[in-house]
Amino acid sequence: MQPRKIGIVGLGLIGGSLALALRRADPSLQIVGVDSVAHTRDLAVSERAVDAAYELGKAPLDECDLVVLAVPGPALIELLAPVSARMRKGAILTDVCGAKERICEAAALLTRVVFIGGHPMAGTEYRGFSAATPTLFFGCTVALCPGDESALGAVRDLWTAAGAATVLEVSPAEHDSAVTYASHLPYLAAAATVEAFRSSTPLAGQLAAGGFRDTTRLAGDGTVSGAASLNRFVPEAARALSQTLRALADQLEQDPLAALKRLESLADERRQMKLPSPSR
Amino acid sequence: MQPRKIGIVGLGLIGGSLALALRRADPSLQIVGVDSVAHTRDLAVSERAVDAAYELGKAPLDECDLVVLAVPGPALIELLAPVSARMRKGAILTDVCGAKERICEAAALLTRVVFIGGHPMAGTEYRGFSAATPTLFFGCTVALCPGDESALGAVRDLWTAAGAATVLEVSPAEHDSAVTYASHLPYLAAAATVEAFRSSTPLAGQLAAGGFRDTTRLAGDGTVSGAASLNRFVPEAARALSQTLRALADQLEQDPLAALKRLESLADERRQMKLPSPSR
Repeated sequence: MQPRKIGIVGLGLIGGSLALALRRADPSLQIVGVDSVAHTRDLAVSERAVDAAYELGKAPLDECDLVVLAVPGPALIELLAPVSARMRKGAILTDVCGAKERICEAAALLTRVVFIGGHPMAGTEYRGFSAATPTLFFGCTVALCPGDESALGAVRDLWTAAGAATVLEVSPAEHDSAVTYASHLPYLAAAATVEAFRSSTPLAGQLAAGGFRDTTRLAGDGTVSGAASLNRFVPEAARALSQTLRALADQLEQDPLAALKRLESLADERRQMKLPSPSR
Repeated sequence: MQPRKIGIVGLGLIGGSLALALRRADPSLQIVGVDSVAHTRDLAVSERAVDAAYELGKAPLDECDLVVLAVPGPALIELLAPVSARMRKGAILTDVCGAKERICEAAALLTRVVFIGGHPMAGTEYRGFSAATPTLFFGCTVALCPGDESALGAVRDLWTAAGAATVLEVSPAEHDSAVTYASHLPYLAAAATVEAFRSSTPLAGQLAAGGFRDTTRLAGDGTVSGAASLNRFVPEAARALSQTLRALADQLEQDPLAALKRLESLADERRQMKLPSPSR
């Protein structure tokens, strides 16, 4: 099924970028935007990212073949029922949340629409429609959770049209466990490093360079936290990371040569990883 | 004093980049390179980064007005005595190590040369002369420790010629405390995140995107670990960071709303920081 009219609920960085990308990929596609902030709706309409934008209570989502929920984690769960209630029976609902078990469990209760859980691995440390860009998803990987084959195909096509290079089908639990290490732990490490920075003197700010900038960039992301809070694998993994840090600290004091050997092997490991280039 | 002939001991990323930058800034400056690896010496000479390159035991460092020690932390301490023994009496010796107390304490025992501790805030996750670039120090900040005024001026001029935008004079203790938060803790957080990644499934590698790449980039740096191991402020700060991470993990479980509020405020804090742009 090729949707002719889609809805995007939440016109922030992800929803706004998706609208801009799909507009370019298929100028004939009709896009209904939904956002609670009037200024955001105006911006998105004035850039022609969406054909029209509404508050949820007035949005003609019943005209859409497919609706994308693009709001941060915890709020997204709350919107599943009211959004699907406004949709046509049998239409496709999908989302972009970085945690999938809790979302898919909640969506399994929906009877009106066909739900496909999704998660595009893309983002920046900026937020809102003013940070949206049509190239945000170029070359990225999107994880989709198993579901109705035809609906899955439509959601896959949507992300491919937006520029995704790889669409993987993964179970919600597999996804959440993997994304813990790929995204949520790096995020918490970055956030904790920013919190630690509060203990420093102003000189630390003057000495902070590319290493600090890159290590903490993800901490500025306003949406990973919501997904991390919905991911049941995160707390235990974060406690293990905390233990690793403590062990490194103790080892640096008690056996610096062993600590340096361990850090050297981690440096080699990191350099050998194949990761997307910074242009993405 | 304007040095006419300088020595650079260690032609890796930092020493090699400094040689390339100074060569461009002043083609008439004579540069003696020292490295223990024949291939590195050959590379540096063939690119004209240095006029000639030697093993330490054969290097005419007595002809140099100024020598830069550009080897990683722990090895650098070992080289202070043998390098200064080969230098002219009263000549200037400086270094690039990211920890200054231990280096400056050891250098205070040198009577033959005038020592100025230095630390350029620049680097990449690559290493060796093959990663060296004449633009590495463009726009960077360099910390220098107090010392003989004339020698300090010469070292300051050297880094300005290499492209540094700011040269700060800071005491070794102030430096080490500040760099703990600006560099060594971010490094350890990145390294711990790479170690945690070992617990993940192959899917995590497929889902890793820009967030993982940037958060862990510094972990690939082969030299920060040496400096961190010489910094007395690091173990306690790393244990505090470990405690912060554990508290975040517990809070995500027990009071997710409070955790999200805390993370939101850290995200705002990070976005408001003024940091060097990625081009540097």
